Amino acid sequence: MHNMSETVRVGVVGCGTVGLAFAELLLERQLAVEEATGVNLELVRIAVRDPSRDRSATLNADLFTDDVEAVVEADDVDVVVELIGGVGVAADVVRRSLKAGKPVVTANKELIGSQGHDLFTLADAASVDLLFEAAAVAAVPILRPLRESLLAEDITHVAGIVNGTTNFILTRMKSDGLEFEEALKLAKDLGLAEPDATADVEGHDAASKIAILASLAFNQAVDVRDVSREGIVGLAREDLDLAGQFGFEVKLLAVAQRIQGDAPGVGTTIAQVFPALVPQDHPLSSVRDSYNAVCINSTAAGQLMFLGHGAGPRPTASAILGDVVAAADHVRRGTHRRVPVAPAAPSESTAGLVHAYYIRLAVEEVPGVLSDVSGILGQHGVSIRTVNQDVSGTSARVVFVTFPAADQSVSDALEELERLPSVLSVSRVLRIFS
Amino acid sequence: MHNMSETVRVGVVGCGTVGLAFAELLLERQLAVEEATGVNLELVRIAVRDPSRDRSATLNADLFTDDVEAVVEADDVDVVVELIGGVGVAADVVRRSLKAGKPVVTANKELIGSQGHDLFTLADAASVDLLFEAAAVAAVPILRPLRESLLAEDITHVAGIVNGTTNFILTRMKSDGLEFEEALKLAKDLGLAEPDATADVEGHDAASKIAILASLAFNQAVDVRDVSREGIVGLAREDLDLAGQFGFEVKLLAVAQRIQGDAPGVGTTIAQVFPALVPQDHPLSSVRDSYNAVCINSTAAGQLMFLGHGAGPRPTASAILGDVVAAADHVRRGTHRRVPVAPAAPSESTAGLVHAYYIRLAVEEVPGVLSDVSGILGQHGVSIRTVNQDVSGTSARVVFVTFPAADQSVSDALEELERLPSVLSVSRVLRIFS
Repeated sequence: MHNMSETVRVGVVGCGTVGLAFAELLLERQLAVEEATGVNLELVRIAVRDPSRDRSATLNADLFTDDVEAVVEADDVDVVVELIGGVGVAADVVRRSLKAGKPVVTANKELIGSQGHDLFTLADAASVDLLFEAAAVAAVPILRPLRESLLAEDITHVAGIVNGTTNFILTRMKSDGLEFEEALKLAKDLGLAEPDATADVEGHDAASKIAILASLAFNQAVDVRDVSREGIVGLAREDLDLAGQFGFEVKLLAVAQRIQGDAPGVGTTIAQVFPALVPQDHPLSSVRDSYNAVCINSTAAGQLMFLGHGAGPRPTASAILGDVVAAADHVRRGTHRRVPVAPAAPSESTAGLVHAYYIRLAVEEVPGVLSDVSGILGQHGVSIRTVNQDVSGTSARVVFVTFPAADQSVSDALEELERLPSVLSVSRVLRIFS
Repeated sequence: MHNMSETVRVGVVGCGTVGLAFAELLLERQLAVEEATGVNLELVRIAVRDPSRDRSATLNADLFTDDVEAVVEADDVDVVVELIGGVGVAADVVRRSLKAGKPVVTANKELIGSQGHDLFTLADAASVDLLFEAAAVAAVPILRPLRESLLAEDITHVAGIVNGTTNFILTRMKSDGLEFEEALKLAKDLGLAEPDATADVEGHDAASKIAILASLAFNQAVDVRDVSREGIVGLAREDLDLAGQFGFEVKLLAVAQRIQGDAPGVGTTIAQVFPALVPQDHPLSSVRDSYNAVCINSTAAGQLMFLGHGAGPRPTASAILGDVVAAADHVRRGTHRRVPVAPAAPSESTAGLVHAYYIRLAVEEVPGVLSDVSGILGQHGVSIRTVNQDVSGTSARVVFVTFPAADQSVSDALEELERLPSVLSVSRVLRIFS
């Protein structure tokens, strides 16, 4: 299709499951990429700790080296792919590659989530690409649409299910009637959760991803340390079932919104990770098992949702290869795509936000308790939309779904409720997403 | 943010509701686009039939002209936006603009669906962009991910709900208990359907869109005339309810798949529009009202879905503006993005396809009728998965859900069933999507 094909040489650092999947996918799709773009992607070198280890029948043993310099600073490498992970050696590899004038593709969400702004500045100074589609929602092409298709859009909200492990756990709790610990064990048995699943269930992984998504959506660096975070540990199946009766699904959401400032381009960003009740007619409510999805709300396009696999070696490799093709095309054209991200503004406190709430209480079954509880909610300006009471013996379970109220008002009301003698416990408080 | 900003001058042809929304959105977002990209988009001229008509308070009357040449061939227009629609004057405007070396952005699905390959060739010869994101699923950024992010992917299937009017009708039939004609009237009353809704309900609109999507997904021009097409006219609410009982939602689907040939890069494409039963755990089943969604299946990324508004002036204008920003950026860089579409291969017959089926029959309530009917299905290799029989008086309604079988076998079996004296009618036959 193209008369003249140009070779762009790719070097990789790190060869775990994702690195291996990427190297194999590159070789598998090399001809097709050349056919479609006129660029021949040549895999020249893979730097690993132990080059002698047997990894793959399809990868020539000569490709491997233990010399990171032979990728990062080699004259025969045009594009560097960083797949070590973490923020130690990986940060060094990315920085040195950019300084050496080489475009970098990475899947490293911790790195971009915590040092993104510095790295974007470095890439811009060196006039090379820094691409990281795989660091957001793996196979789901969301960053490029944000950077390009939606560049002219006024994006107001980003909300997503960006962690497949926790979404699998919540789906199985609901559909198979499992408790949290049982569903977590199932996820581990199926290889969908690491033996130490803290990064998933405590929301750290989701926090890195929403930091990256918010940075691109709002053109303003968001640091993962500024993301407020609440995980799904200890969520009860009972709450998922009750939520279902009220018309909601419980999902671990990562949300970010822009708080408009006084001058154009000035504003702050709030990013949060928390389990929430999602209305059953919202597209995010039907995202099942380990699928991920991100909703973008903007003033002209309205609501958009992007769904797909947010993890796994092949889906991640697919996103990396898409970026490598873009970087290679830019190398050939002598151009690059800068990340238009302004420095971080101070992040806004979440105390001013407004949500409807799901509140489950255990109360003593004494006359007037419902009146006392709803009275306190009312005093704090929290109106009740639905109430569900279930008596067993001398105690009762009361579940309220409220109308939207300020987070601070709800928090004040709950504090007061906990002091009420007839309230045995505030068993669960979840926000409702709208 | 940028020290030097460059002006790219935009000319528009056509100013109906979409043209107006685009012109207004461009002015609204002009500063933000300049801030993010360093490109100042200047709206220089809008060619219309009657420039004296009062259109908008925000658009200067001096912008309007009745001289198409003043856009298509003017020295002070860098990018042409064609928003006339149809395949007459619009085709001429696009061709002449491309020949004059001007990049073109269009929302014209009929034009791209029927003359795409010629126009892509023309754009390529002139080394300019021809962009048409708004022609596929309006605000949903799907073409750019297909052309760029997923360029290295081996896409096997594309399936979507790409017509909002029919999806609204089917949603309302199911949820509000309306018959087809009632739901159609509601759509018209709400402005979601044209007074003449033929293009929507007969599947013509969806056929143009799947032709465009398939062309980009498979890098092989697909002509709308090669898309087999079946609309939703006369679908009964009864079938939507029955489908629901079996665990399915009825949706008007546009699907395309690649039939791999013997040599790499050689293959044929089958594209179809038809109402189908979609399993309730498939993400397409939960796409409601006038939302559109497109699923892409590929070997590495797996399943992806893109959801959003597929019509409406503002969402369409959003997609056009995204393309104009891309075209302007390319003008500034002196580059363009070619559409890598090979000439059309002969389209494949659908007779060899395999589907599970939903079959509703009216039969006489006589002994042995179920055995006769299932016997005939069996003789044609069509196995029954579920059967539901509902007797009323001397007749009965029988609904079969079959296992997958060749379309041709099912068609042969149905022909024989129609000749069976105890079969009063083959009331409805729908394919099941998987």
